[in-house]
Amino acid sequence: MILIGELINSSRKPVAEAIAAQDVGFIQDLAKAQAAAGVDYLDVNCGTHIADEPKMLAWLTRIVQEVVDLPLCIDSPNPEALAAALQVHRGKALLNSISLEKQRFEQMIPIVSEYGCSVIGLCMDDRGMPEDETMALECAQMLVERLQQRGLPVEDIYLDPLVRPISTNSKYGTVFLQTVAAIRNRFSKVHITCGLSNISYGLPNRKHLNQAFLVMAMASGMDSAIVDPLDRKLMALVYAAEAILGKDEYCAGYISAQREGKLDS
Amino acid sequence: MILIGELINSSRKPVAEAIAAQDVGFIQDLAKAQAAAGVDYLDVNCGTHIADEPKMLAWLTRIVQEVVDLPLCIDSPNPEALAAALQVHRGKALLNSISLEKQRFEQMIPIVSEYGCSVIGLCMDDRGMPEDETMALECAQMLVERLQQRGLPVEDIYLDPLVRPISTNSKYGTVFLQTVAAIRNRFSKVHITCGLSNISYGLPNRKHLNQAFLVMAMASGMDSAIVDPLDRKLMALVYAAEAILGKDEYCAGYISAQREGKLDS
Repeated sequence: MILIGELINSSRKPVAEAIAAQDVGFIQDLAKAQAAAGVDYLDVNCGTHIADEPKMLAWLTRIVQEVVDLPLCIDSPNPEALAAALQVHRGKALLNSISLEKQRFEQMIPIVSEYGCSVIGLCMDDRGMPEDETMALECAQMLVERLQQRGLPVEDIYLDPLVRPISTNSKYGTVFLQTVAAIRNRFSKVHITCGLSNISYGLPNRKHLNQAFLVMAMASGMDSAIVDPLDRKLMALVYAAEAILGKDEYCAGYISAQREGKLDS
Repeated sequence: MILIGELINSSRKPVAEAIAAQDVGFIQDLAKAQAAAGVDYLDVNCGTHIADEPKMLAWLTRIVQEVVDLPLCIDSPNPEALAAALQVHRGKALLNSISLEKQRFEQMIPIVSEYGCSVIGLCMDDRGMPEDETMALECAQMLVERLQQRGLPVEDIYLDPLVRPISTNSKYGTVFLQTVAAIRNRFSKVHITCGLSNISYGLPNRKHLNQAFLVMAMASGMDSAIVDPLDRKLMALVYAAEAILGKDEYCAGYISAQREGKLDS
């Protein structure tokens, strides 16, 4: 499972304040804590700082990589901000995100090529977000085709079928799970990821919903997610799910996690 | 989700001792606690008291139903013990269990007919437990066919595809999940249940594995399970899973559970 730590995001108030105050220590502590929890990427997002997003995203990238030896998931809809961050990024970044929206695709693709990133592709086009798994699968296929045409290997593509809150439509959970299964059935090597916590938007005690949803999506074939890695229960369930799905031979990873105290709450 | 509380089972040492000492209060407290946690059935098993199992199982049935208004899941491979318990049982019991093993099937079926129970059918025959989902599905089909031939409505059949520990074979998790999906695809109305905790046998910190496995099996179409209902996290994940799977309109059950304090750990 390829996990992306979500906490360095200016939509979270303490992070927005730390960015505004240029509080290096706060951001770096958040980076170190997530890295210690065992993620593969750290997401960096300062979307609320619209005025100087390129400068701020590059700053975040630099100070985070000063203290953790991980690639970042550089998160912005603004091509200038992405390019500024990628200029200072060390290693192979994950660009978050491209989509089939015509303008967005054409603006992002030269950046992906120039910096040799992996890329998260949102399964949507200029018609908006798909309402059912048929349209979502069409978007997924089109994205893979067009990204490969532009020279991106399938292993560098992370498809995001887009999670929507079950509080707005009780079918959105199953539509997502069926879309994941259909994509996995069609493409064995593409990565499938999502922003997990959207599922529980508007509901109380969201952690149970996020945790159950992650486990189900893993069973459907999702192999990556953007998560809060400081949710110890969520991380324990990821170890458990990998063992149950036969992706952890002799349950060695689960047993190691136990020895390292990662399964205690 | 039809939940069966597993705790009144003489394989658990305190229960074996309470049965030996005829400690009515201990057993009744365990019954009340499980009922309060929200199960649909209570399992009663005194399989370790071989010498007087019929008498003991009838005693358990009687004292449990003195304090809880729930049907029981009467759990024994011994037809005499089952009959003795069913004689004193009030309401429609769930017999645990029948299988395709020739002798067991022929001994149990008259009891099912006489007392009008529902029945758990283990997906195995005289060849033993199925090694793959094809054979498990064959057993499931044969069970449904033969039970229906004997007059049992499909809604009274609980198929148990048999959970085996991932510590002995890393494929057993996915074999089970695929079997559940295949059975659900073939029979929309049959119930599918299992003894959940077998999945984690031999591994440390089993609760995470049991919880993740339950959520995955629900997503595959399982609609019942034999569980520890005093595991509050497990119960919270069941509420979460039902909401995600679109079986809880407007998330009303999840929100009620929150109001009743059932989602707190």
